[in-house]
Amino acid sequence: MQFLFIFILVIASVTLPADEGMWEPYQMSELKNEVRQAGFRRNINSISSPFEYPMNAIVSLGGCSASFVSPNGLIATNYHCIEGSYLQYNSSQENNLFETGFVARSLDEEKRSAPGARVYITLSSSDITEKVLAGISDTTENSQRANIIEANRKNIINACETSAEIECRVRSFFSGETFKLEKVRVIKDVRLVYAPPASIGEYGGEIDNWMYPRHTGDFALLRAYVSADGTSQEFNTANVPYASKNYLKISARGVDEGDFVMVLGYPGRTNRLLTMNEIDYDLTVGFQGVVDYLDHGIALIDEHTNQEDGSALKYRGTKSGYENYYKKISGQIDGADNFQLLQYEQANWNKFLTFVENELSSEDQEYLARLLSLIDTQQARALPNRYYGRSTLISTAKRLYRNAFEQEKPNAERKPGYQDRDQERLLNGLRGLSYRFDPRVDKAIFLDRLLTYASFAPELRRPVYSAMLDLDLGAAAIRSKVDQIYSSQYQTPEAFLELASMTIEQMNASADPLLVLARETFAESLEYEADAESEGAEKQLLKSKFIKMLRAFYESEGRSIYADANGTLRVTYGNVKSVTLEDGLLYQPFTTLEGIPAKHSGQEPFNAPQKLLKLIDDKDYGKYEVKALGSVPVNFIANLDITNGNSGSATINRNFELVGLAFDGMLETIIADYRYIPQARTISVDSRYMLWTLDKFHGAENILNELTITN
Amino acid sequence: MQFLFIFILVIASVTLPADEGMWEPYQMSELKNEVRQAGFRRNINSISSPFEYPMNAIVSLGGCSASFVSPNGLIATNYHCIEGSYLQYNSSQENNLFETGFVARSLDEEKRSAPGARVYITLSSSDITEKVLAGISDTTENSQRANIIEANRKNIINACETSAEIECRVRSFFSGETFKLEKVRVIKDVRLVYAPPASIGEYGGEIDNWMYPRHTGDFALLRAYVSADGTSQEFNTANVPYASKNYLKISARGVDEGDFVMVLGYPGRTNRLLTMNEIDYDLTVGFQGVVDYLDHGIALIDEHTNQEDGSALKYRGTKSGYENYYKKISGQIDGADNFQLLQYEQANWNKFLTFVENELSSEDQEYLARLLSLIDTQQARALPNRYYGRSTLISTAKRLYRNAFEQEKPNAERKPGYQDRDQERLLNGLRGLSYRFDPRVDKAIFLDRLLTYASFAPELRRPVYSAMLDLDLGAAAIRSKVDQIYSSQYQTPEAFLELASMTIEQMNASADPLLVLARETFAESLEYEADAESEGAEKQLLKSKFIKMLRAFYESEGRSIYADANGTLRVTYGNVKSVTLEDGLLYQPFTTLEGIPAKHSGQEPFNAPQKLLKLIDDKDYGKYEVKALGSVPVNFIANLDITNGNSGSATINRNFELVGLAFDGMLETIIADYRYIPQARTISVDSRYMLWTLDKFHGAENILNELTITN
Repeated sequence: MQFLFIFILVIASVTLPADEGMWEPYQMSELKNEVRQAGFRRNINSISSPFEYPMNAIVSLGGCSASFVSPNGLIATNYHCIEGSYLQYNSSQENNLFETGFVARSLDEEKRSAPGARVYITLSSSDITEKVLAGISDTTENSQRANIIEANRKNIINACETSAEIECRVRSFFSGETFKLEKVRVIKDVRLVYAPPASIGEYGGEIDNWMYPRHTGDFALLRAYVSADGTSQEFNTANVPYASKNYLKISARGVDEGDFVMVLGYPGRTNRLLTMNEIDYDLTVGFQGVVDYLDHGIALIDEHTNQEDGSALKYRGTKSGYENYYKKISGQIDGADNFQLLQYEQANWNKFLTFVENELSSEDQEYLARLLSLIDTQQARALPNRYYGRSTLISTAKRLYRNAFEQEKPNAERKPGYQDRDQERLLNGLRGLSYRFDPRVDKAIFLDRLLTYASFAPELRRPVYSAMLDLDLGAAAIRSKVDQIYSSQYQTPEAFLELASMTIEQMNASADPLLVLARETFAESLEYEADAESEGAEKQLLKSKFIKMLRAFYESEGRSIYADANGTLRVTYGNVKSVTLEDGLLYQPFTTLEGIPAKHSGQEPFNAPQKLLKLIDDKDYGKYEVKALGSVPVNFIANLDITNGNSGSATINRNFELVGLAFDGMLETIIADYRYIPQARTISVDSRYMLWTLDKFHGAENILNELTITN
Repeated sequence: MQFLFIFILVIASVTLPADEGMWEPYQMSELKNEVRQAGFRRNINSISSPFEYPMNAIVSLGGCSASFVSPNGLIATNYHCIEGSYLQYNSSQENNLFETGFVARSLDEEKRSAPGARVYITLSSSDITEKVLAGISDTTENSQRANIIEANRKNIINACETSAEIECRVRSFFSGETFKLEKVRVIKDVRLVYAPPASIGEYGGEIDNWMYPRHTGDFALLRAYVSADGTSQEFNTANVPYASKNYLKISARGVDEGDFVMVLGYPGRTNRLLTMNEIDYDLTVGFQGVVDYLDHGIALIDEHTNQEDGSALKYRGTKSGYENYYKKISGQIDGADNFQLLQYEQANWNKFLTFVENELSSEDQEYLARLLSLIDTQQARALPNRYYGRSTLISTAKRLYRNAFEQEKPNAERKPGYQDRDQERLLNGLRGLSYRFDPRVDKAIFLDRLLTYASFAPELRRPVYSAMLDLDLGAAAIRSKVDQIYSSQYQTPEAFLELASMTIEQMNASADPLLVLARETFAESLEYEADAESEGAEKQLLKSKFIKMLRAFYESEGRSIYADANGTLRVTYGNVKSVTLEDGLLYQPFTTLEGIPAKHSGQEPFNAPQKLLKLIDDKDYGKYEVKALGSVPVNFIANLDITNGNSGSATINRNFELVGLAFDGMLETIIADYRYIPQARTISVDSRYMLWTLDKFHGAENILNELTITN
């Protein structure tokens, strides 16, 4: 693999444009004028609360976004969001849903998800910064600071989680300067209702990924189920569809160029408020390290998996995740170069430093120096740490050992992640390994990563772990040690579940090499964990100080500031809009059906179904045709500000109707995670293509009847 | 190398659009309405004669087109048209004009061309079909037919060439159905006036070749010189600039999107009137054979040339020609697929066959069967023939041996190509080898090609030639034979000139291995030549019949027919126009200066000069800025119908002002040589970029003063 070399126009972004940002809903009222200017006509309050319509139709799948689209719990999201827990889980060599697609013609036919697949409905969000930091001061010793914050968080969550279907999370905004409590309802029985074949749902595959023009039918439908009494329960045939009184209508009229659109969803992470040291590290060292790691990881999966024993299918998700991330980081490397990110950020940082020196206290200056020093320390450990671990077998055993250890304590005193509330998720995680773990492949990949880890200087490695694995005795010794560990009797999800039921005494009494490793490295793991937590607490303090300085600096420049994406509900608004990223070339707002046969080669990922090609050849557009295009639009672009996690988000028009599902950005501007890029575009699958596919390709009348389709 | 895989929209071209065609000037009056509809407002007669203004400002360089742009013989053409005879000829390791570019600040500084570089001014053209075919009937035996036609042609040319500066050519139109006599004035002293550095003139190089968006400053200036009395003479310092009373003004206002434009030039060859057997062969066998040949040829040049001994420079032209052609054929392979050429032509051919069967005589049907049979026979020999010869050393010796042989006859009886009129060109060809021939490289490439030739069955090879070169005795024997031939004392242009002065007796007396080979294969060569001529005469007859049938078929369908390009002056008209070749992507009509730094990598071919980058960074657009673009346009596209040979053609507006120079087409539609494609676009370098470069980059005031610039 090599980096894509992208020709791109360098632009000098002078001021922040009004439509920048992944806003928290409450901020919309402050943006009233800007939103109106973009074409929004309703009362701004209607999009200022996550708990009112339309925002309360938006849900999270954990990693992806989604939305209710019927009063009976029907959920629309991206095809690529359901590949693992729904398609892979329900597929076999004989019955491969990636090939066939899936349409449930009745509720009976809907397919259950892998254990642990969830839908999360946000119920409330409130600022709890004071409660999280209660009992500490800026001078509290770090480990004590860590312990107090952890205790505070546990108490807050404990008080919040009033029932089994409620999950509460303390969310950090602005790198821990602000904390909010998010209360979420968890739907535990989610089923597959509809997915097109991969030859529609991921048409273009890895080649077209992060690219436009695009022709991907990246949509699918799920359904939330609850028990008959309305409470959230695990899968049970007696469960009934969830009554989702807030849901989005689907527009069959769709959008035109220039139309106002919004995306409501759960973006995962951006890095727009970093120190220069962090940006510089990522651009000059970090990105490349990740790219190397992923590139080799893809090669390892290719080498050690095959179709025959099903391992290729099991690692399909991991591999496609690696490829996706690889391409993204490569695009960020090029984008940083094209948009001169380093130069821009350095200039900005220099101004910030001048401001700090001239305007802020010596105390602040000292905090900043401490923060940068801490960051430098952490960066020095980043590369070896990337190669530490990397065995699903070992990490599972260690987690179960830890869990058994924690179970000896009263629930309230246990480490977060090992409390009663966490047990169900832990077991589901073990069960889920059945479709994405193969001990033979796991071992081969681990050994390779371990040999790299062993190549770092001893002082950069964990000493006990290194000794246990003979890391200083050469490759043959290491290989033999790994052979020994992987001779463990605990190699399957069933065996892991058996392990999960053992007490710490039973585990300690075992001579199984896997448990011996978990036991012998346990003290070291705890020590490293405590150090990391202590360092984390210090960083939270220092970053809080930094953010306050940054706020003052932004204010001095008349610039507004907003929190980086952190997996919480955000709003971005803009317009359906073409873009020029290369002189002389215009990306048009819409792609059409005709682009599908044009890309069709018969070879994956450009292997459109014959029936689809026939429909297009026959110009069987039905009522979904757009006269101006002379066809049905497939995907469209809009200047919306999204990132990973937004996948599956509803793209809605000014009437709050679903006009598409956001599923991708463009590689050329993917560096927007680090700095807003006005030319960045969100790619959505068009509602008209979704409806056309359901109608003409699948004849899915039951689904079309359930949707509320507007014209 | 591998084929570029191009996604392209397949279009179903039902009827021939009005603006299709590389028209002969006389046809323009028939197209009056169509041309007017495209935006032309003047009297159509003004563009219906090649001998009136503006067409009489258009000249040929032999392989490229050009135009006078001052009353003092100044000529504008493409940079890539002057690389060989002007830049390579005047360059050395120490003074590399490709790197520095060249501006003559006065007449004194202008640089002479390689021997044989010419400018051709068309003086007249007339139909002489009857004269060429005088004395033969459809039943004349083939070899006799060939002899009579050759004699007729010699007589016609002899009567036409009334002075040393006049060259007459019998041109075949419609595959020999029509012949025209073209009378041309030859300018023999042509000098280099201006060329940008390659980093402007071929910016983007082979990567951007056949591509758009494009940023190539593909223009250069030459000057025609004649003796003081006005007659055309070889280079002489006493010569004076040619008084070109007909010349084009240069527009500094340029064109806008939608503007009417024409290209006047000398397209070389199209294949729009072939039999199905020919099309089918090219698409299924021929293209691939050429691609293989070129691909390996590029590898051979890379392997056997180097910078140190100057051989890389000598083969630069050959290599770039190979690369250019390779890319073109690859594009044609993809384009044929994308535009479903085979299916379309097969359907058309089936209709034609039905027409022939139902409407035409059994005699015609027999002619058609004979033609197709002959074509099949020729195709079977095509592949081995491609690998026959391929030694510049040997072919030069054979040509000189033949020349000496012909010199024994009275001039009128000599074979065309060896008459008195041809001697000067022959000698200039020998002299020109000094900058594009290296015997070491020639030998290495020949040996490789010869080994391939030897791999074909003996009956597909020339027997005497094969025996002389030990082709049936294995690689070692062949290599040893080639060593022997290349030990010849005649290896340099000087030695070739010495050879050229020898009589046939002297040559026959020589024991030089090269001359021995020429002598021993001479009878065989004559025999093959006679066979080929006889076959050619038969094909001329059969193709004439075919064209007549095709005319009748076209007429029955209400379609117009026009002659394939054949190196004669043609007109194509259309508009400056964007195009979509891939769903969702629009090629905009103009590229701008800002695209140059965006592509700049510092590495050839994207190594723009620092001064150019500075001017662009400073937005020093001068009076050439287009407000709507906020910059200076660099290249533009228009729906003009051109092909190889049109390079350097003036692109003129409705006022006959030069607004650009056509230099390329787009790979996606390069299959248009076989069938007109409405989405095909001609890429021109914009007159505003030419003037801006001359002005801002070069400060070439003398040139700007000489041009007539309109605003």
